[in-house]
Amino acid sequence: MTAELDRVESFLAEREDERLADYFDFLRIPSISTLSEHAGDIRAAARFLAERLGAWGLENVEVSPTPGHPVVYADWLHAEGAPTVIVYGHYDVQPVDPLDLWERPPFEPRMEGGRIYGRGAADDKGQVHLHLWVARAWLATAGRLPVNLRFVFEGEEESGSENFDLWLEANRGRLGADLVVVSDTGFAQGNHPAITIGLRGLVYGQIDVEGPALDLHSGTWGGNVQNPAIALARIIAALKNEDGTIAVPGFLDEVKELTERDRDEFARVPFDAAEVETQLGVPALFGDPAFRPLERRGARPTLEINGIWGGFTGEGQKTIIPAHAHAKFSCRLVAEMDPRRTFQRVKDAILAVPVPGVRVTVRHLGDGMWTSTEVDHPASIAAARCLEDVFGAPPYYLREGGSIPAAAAFHRLLGLPVVLLGFTNPDDQAHAPNEQMVYANYEGGLRTIARYWEALAALGPGLGAGTRS
Amino acid sequence: MTAELDRVESFLAEREDERLADYFDFLRIPSISTLSEHAGDIRAAARFLAERLGAWGLENVEVSPTPGHPVVYADWLHAEGAPTVIVYGHYDVQPVDPLDLWERPPFEPRMEGGRIYGRGAADDKGQVHLHLWVARAWLATAGRLPVNLRFVFEGEEESGSENFDLWLEANRGRLGADLVVVSDTGFAQGNHPAITIGLRGLVYGQIDVEGPALDLHSGTWGGNVQNPAIALARIIAALKNEDGTIAVPGFLDEVKELTERDRDEFARVPFDAAEVETQLGVPALFGDPAFRPLERRGARPTLEINGIWGGFTGEGQKTIIPAHAHAKFSCRLVAEMDPRRTFQRVKDAILAVPVPGVRVTVRHLGDGMWTSTEVDHPASIAAARCLEDVFGAPPYYLREGGSIPAAAAFHRLLGLPVVLLGFTNPDDQAHAPNEQMVYANYEGGLRTIARYWEALAALGPGLGAGTRS
Repeated sequence: MTAELDRVESFLAEREDERLADYFDFLRIPSISTLSEHAGDIRAAARFLAERLGAWGLENVEVSPTPGHPVVYADWLHAEGAPTVIVYGHYDVQPVDPLDLWERPPFEPRMEGGRIYGRGAADDKGQVHLHLWVARAWLATAGRLPVNLRFVFEGEEESGSENFDLWLEANRGRLGADLVVVSDTGFAQGNHPAITIGLRGLVYGQIDVEGPALDLHSGTWGGNVQNPAIALARIIAALKNEDGTIAVPGFLDEVKELTERDRDEFARVPFDAAEVETQLGVPALFGDPAFRPLERRGARPTLEINGIWGGFTGEGQKTIIPAHAHAKFSCRLVAEMDPRRTFQRVKDAILAVPVPGVRVTVRHLGDGMWTSTEVDHPASIAAARCLEDVFGAPPYYLREGGSIPAAAAFHRLLGLPVVLLGFTNPDDQAHAPNEQMVYANYEGGLRTIARYWEALAALGPGLGAGTRS
Repeated sequence: MTAELDRVESFLAEREDERLADYFDFLRIPSISTLSEHAGDIRAAARFLAERLGAWGLENVEVSPTPGHPVVYADWLHAEGAPTVIVYGHYDVQPVDPLDLWERPPFEPRMEGGRIYGRGAADDKGQVHLHLWVARAWLATAGRLPVNLRFVFEGEEESGSENFDLWLEANRGRLGADLVVVSDTGFAQGNHPAITIGLRGLVYGQIDVEGPALDLHSGTWGGNVQNPAIALARIIAALKNEDGTIAVPGFLDEVKELTERDRDEFARVPFDAAEVETQLGVPALFGDPAFRPLERRGARPTLEINGIWGGFTGEGQKTIIPAHAHAKFSCRLVAEMDPRRTFQRVKDAILAVPVPGVRVTVRHLGDGMWTSTEVDHPASIAAARCLEDVFGAPPYYLREGGSIPAAAAFHRLLGLPVVLLGFTNPDDQAHAPNEQMVYANYEGGLRTIARYWEALAALGPGLGAGTRS
């Protein structure tokens, strides 16, 4: 370890209390991007970041508007001859319902049993926060950063990064860089260090089935009108087969088939189905029988219902035919699927289900590309070495099931390589009640990033490689 | 018209303002029986009835407990040699969601365009209220009633009359009578006077599909667990065929087939499908193609979904797999179906749908028998004549789609004939937002009932007929 890095680590260690309090302050802001009543909280979270970036030595700090929620930008560009790195993260969080399943309120963070609990603790405020503090520590102790940094923190990742492409296109002129580092992923089962080398894309939509103008008395009208809830059920049932495979015509046409080598690589990563079943509380895993669970997660597309509602949902009985029924659906996409084409295929399949007597519409709510990165890029190799130095074991390479549309956008629009270097524990309950982050992962993340900047600087200009193909 | 009846009508006409204000006071009580937070309102509505019954000359007034909501009982038994009539109605109302579709708050009644708006205006507080005032008017003007009356007002009709059978069995010893009159039905299309001669029975249940212990991230776990909302959709879709017929094995086994005479009688009743489609706001009616709409309503069973819910139902996107999904279902039953056997068949069909990876349970929430009455019973003939006298046209005979479990119970447990003599307009929006009652129907109802007691008295003891077979 260099003397400089030693001082960075000491700075971080000495300020543990202040750092944790600051992390908790960030988690207290209910910055739920998908719910319009939280627009003020989104702005508060953006201000939280901008204030610290400015106070701690970053420059050109800006809360940069988009048609939706703003992007927080800041940079430090005085590492002459060193590579330039864009650090991407997001300061918005998922909704918190069902609220009654949280053991403590989601926006009252706490540490318990070595874990930090609260919405955003893992996804992604914890990881954004550790980047802030690594930059602070370097600037406070060495008066410099080993690399040039551009922070780009988004406020709409959890609502599909709807406006991020627009922002990126509008700002590409000032985003010159050699690499994008995204810290919004995590470790392998058993909390083993990992680097993510693939993410799935996403398409999100809504099915609206409209029947009578008002809820009808089910005695008077039952048997004489199409029931919107039944029509919706028929539609959903038609989209998937009994074995869990997808029944939408053409859905799999562009899916890249797994090679023998791909399947061997998947087989290397630990996965204990029985342990996962216990953890999730399901009687059994369920999915396309032609693939293993990690293959289904990393290399196969999905079509899931995220929510369904219509009619009477209270206690007891209400004898109505619902006026309308609705479902949210989303697909995860893998190489080489196209989000728009996929949406159109699903929409066509929905509208092809014969449900006379109701009106069916399909709305597009958002999408994002899949992404894959190269294991043998020098920046990936350096990341793996830093992880091993800090966590004591070489990382696994994961192809993950989630989506980070922005990661794909950086590659597509700026032509930059992307390293997905995240630290969350796999049982972090992201998107669910009682979200949490193992504190040792957060601490190790700080130290990994602190030395990663040094390691990247050592690679020299252009990171010792061409831009990613 | 007799001089006594003339005075009764004058009394009712002179007190129109007081009577309407009293009706509105009754409608202001949010006595929703199916929601436990309204238990206090249910008690208030029972007290409202008991106070008036006592003040206006009824005797043995009692708020009679059941394991659920109480029955309000009162009688007047001094018409020696005259028949004894049980008058049944209910003082509870349906829930009011979706609240945003009400043009005015549901419990702030008002008169507008000759209609009284408010939850319960038609079903059934309006009709209970007119019975109260007819009794008051007879007692105040003649000092007597032409017949012996027993009022039995239930508080659980809208939650399936769960405890009414129990109450009836416990009190059968003191319920000696010749006839039951139920005013909880209405007129034919075009607001043409009608007597209901058939009602469907009801079975109500809930399907619960339980998957993972918590909502899961649809990226991480999509494609690897059974989605409870999709499993629920598969189950519902399996219960019905594409043409709207019921796919549950054995469901129709006991259904009494329609005779040619039955079908001719149905064809006599006016029904304008185009007008109904416009009124309901549906593109087309939909149902078993082998039957006409009024046959489907009156003589064929149904299986409907009354509500469905699970997962994320807010605006925007939330990328989860729901931990669980649920649906309320109900069946309307016709002669000679058995509610328990029907429930078991539906339950068996639900549990037979292959949905590995989730737990499915089916709960029984309530049931009630179908009922049918005889057109040629002297009490039915007298009711038809009173309706024609007041409304100026002979009534149609309707077989209705709704259910009044109590009507069936009176026949089954007490062996009494039941006349279903109700006054609501067919566009009353019962069970829906903006429930309403045409004021002329309410006023005509008062006058019909006032003279019906006289007409029944004229039939003499035992109504000039044996008890109904």
